[in-house]
Amino acid sequence: MIVSTKANGRAAQATGASVSEDRLASRTRRMSASAISEILKVASRPGVISLAGGLPAPESFPVAYAHELIEGALKKHGPSIFQYGPTEGFLPLREAIAGYLAERDVVAAADEVVITTGSQQTLDALGKVLISPGDKIAVESPTYLGAICGFNPYQPDYVALESDDDGVIPEALEQALEDHVIKFVYLIPNFQNPSGRTLSLARRKAIAAMARKHGALIIEDDPYRSLRYEGEHLPTLWSLAPELVVYAGTLSKVLSPGMRIGFCVAPPLIRRWIVLAKQGMDLHTSSLDQAIAAEYISGGYLKSHLPDIIALYRPRLGAMLDSLEESLPKNYSWSHPEGGMFLWLSGPAGLDTEKLYPLAVERNVAYVPGRYFFTTPGEGNNTARLNFSNVDEAAIRTGIEKLASLMLETTGR
Amino acid sequence: MIVSTKANGRAAQATGASVSEDRLASRTRRMSASAISEILKVASRPGVISLAGGLPAPESFPVAYAHELIEGALKKHGPSIFQYGPTEGFLPLREAIAGYLAERDVVAAADEVVITTGSQQTLDALGKVLISPGDKIAVESPTYLGAICGFNPYQPDYVALESDDDGVIPEALEQALEDHVIKFVYLIPNFQNPSGRTLSLARRKAIAAMARKHGALIIEDDPYRSLRYEGEHLPTLWSLAPELVVYAGTLSKVLSPGMRIGFCVAPPLIRRWIVLAKQGMDLHTSSLDQAIAAEYISGGYLKSHLPDIIALYRPRLGAMLDSLEESLPKNYSWSHPEGGMFLWLSGPAGLDTEKLYPLAVERNVAYVPGRYFFTTPGEGNNTARLNFSNVDEAAIRTGIEKLASLMLETTGR
Repeated sequence: MIVSTKANGRAAQATGASVSEDRLASRTRRMSASAISEILKVASRPGVISLAGGLPAPESFPVAYAHELIEGALKKHGPSIFQYGPTEGFLPLREAIAGYLAERDVVAAADEVVITTGSQQTLDALGKVLISPGDKIAVESPTYLGAICGFNPYQPDYVALESDDDGVIPEALEQALEDHVIKFVYLIPNFQNPSGRTLSLARRKAIAAMARKHGALIIEDDPYRSLRYEGEHLPTLWSLAPELVVYAGTLSKVLSPGMRIGFCVAPPLIRRWIVLAKQGMDLHTSSLDQAIAAEYISGGYLKSHLPDIIALYRPRLGAMLDSLEESLPKNYSWSHPEGGMFLWLSGPAGLDTEKLYPLAVERNVAYVPGRYFFTTPGEGNNTARLNFSNVDEAAIRTGIEKLASLMLETTGR
Repeated sequence: MIVSTKANGRAAQATGASVSEDRLASRTRRMSASAISEILKVASRPGVISLAGGLPAPESFPVAYAHELIEGALKKHGPSIFQYGPTEGFLPLREAIAGYLAERDVVAAADEVVITTGSQQTLDALGKVLISPGDKIAVESPTYLGAICGFNPYQPDYVALESDDDGVIPEALEQALEDHVIKFVYLIPNFQNPSGRTLSLARRKAIAAMARKHGALIIEDDPYRSLRYEGEHLPTLWSLAPELVVYAGTLSKVLSPGMRIGFCVAPPLIRRWIVLAKQGMDLHTSSLDQAIAAEYISGGYLKSHLPDIIALYRPRLGAMLDSLEESLPKNYSWSHPEGGMFLWLSGPAGLDTEKLYPLAVERNVAYVPGRYFFTTPGEGNNTARLNFSNVDEAAIRTGIEKLASLMLETTGR
């Protein structure tokens, strides 16, 4: 680690007294400004009905009992909620999460749960610990932008896996595992972002068997599981192959995204390295937020509040599905999510959702053009992601009507 | 980014159905368990007077007005304190920090301040954005372990800079800049961790001039600045060469370390990349914690509370200095910090603070052996870091007496 070789570094350094691009690490060129940040900025203009973002509804936040939660946490834990804490997480929260996870068939002891600063940090830590430059990662197509943004600095290459209404196509994964050394497979099996699709039971079983056959590691990102508005819960991939699955979750959709509480359950070796990596990343996740979150779960607030959140979002999804049905003809199709926050719209080949975007904003409706969710350039030009969690039913209806009439002007009926 | 080459990856993958070390990234071997975590574990045994950790005193935490702070934040910002927020930070906090920094001669506009998840995240982000494998980083010797832990995953080499009672020796830095291409210089100019030393005014000026001459980038890590118990504040390196200094701070020592609020002011190019990197790291720092912190500063709590924190720590430092004076002979020496949380003890050549450690714990006193703070193996065996912020005066006196008598048994008077 210690260098003592003499080298003439002056020429390279004495390029003047300000900081220029050549000072950056080689990996830095892989971190580009999120392409959709401009889109989201425009979408937040006053008067625009935004189906673009991915925000939970403010009405779902624990404003009414914030005081109770903090009082409870202070009473139980005293000043320690303001003190440094263990990197793995605040034990009462790890216990509470273990209980919460057991209900979704992820059966882990509290000390097998690692708390992270949002599930984004789980992704960053996995990238840090697992990805060497040039490693290949298999991702659904389309996939979650935040994951790409988390992995990119570690310089992987992506293998895009074709998906349909039942989620990722197992044969596409099998082919990828045959053709490439895949460092890991990144999947969102429930109400995927951006597509809203859910991986079917048969495919879950097929993928778990495939992982076992190939010794493939799977990252199962499951932020929306609790937001199921109809149908039955399906088994997690983790429950089908726990030794090969990193299960990542978050409280962002059922408590507060602003509090940045994520968690994961991983094979012991990976768990240990995630914790070591996290130590260098932020030492630990906010003790205060963890204590509040522990109180939210163990005090029964989550259990009593979750039905309210579902009751808030279910009619919003319904309004969006009904409006699409009423406004768009047969050459348009869309996913029919049973939960989550997003729906995926596909139009005929002539539709160019990116080109249409400024016109849509002019008419006061915003969405995210689908192309941004593909790792392969040129795909998804006729698709869009629509969010239904952050706008009420009336606005959803108006927004879809505006959007549909604009789309039909360009593609014809 | 998309791979389509055919490669026979099956052999490499089909190594069985569990996850083994060969799955890890090449960089991961650089992340080792913090050597001192075992030491800190032992130090926290009941009955042990711990001078080992680096914890602020719980009495310094805002327990008494936690409710007021949250109420104030909710009143001003409503449910948005639970919502996703901008990666750069919550604007009212950036404004408050800009005001706080102006008092320490770091004059930046609110939009030049980036909020991070503890200053640890500033270090991680800087490593991510700046360090290519094999890049050389100049660090004080001894230096802060957490920084090494933050930088190591990006695989730098370290150039250790000799230090004395006035901080890092400018000639050592000059030599390093002549001999090597130095990616950046990492310094803690005030009440350094672990040494408690403060960089003198003359050296600050010399180092700023040197940075200008060589176009060298400096990371100025300044967590303890507000904790000055005597003497006058010295100008920041940032104020002497703002175009070449990344200034990193934290609210961990003046509000709460558990809330993980750090901040930095950096040259525009680096600031922009830190924000991009942070987006992939945790999206943003806790909105709730940022809103509480904004209230703490803008509501005048910090200003009125800081004198109490100083009044708590000043006599603790005094008690430690007095006890050392009374208990140890002339062949021992120690730093005389004017602030911060740590003091640095050096004994005669025969002293081996690591070997002594288990015996000290047996006598119910703990510290951190100094060798852990050196990047060069074999250095600092006769040194120790002593913390005075988390133990009251009586315990400090007892602890130092125990430690001194044990040391004198091995080195003689």
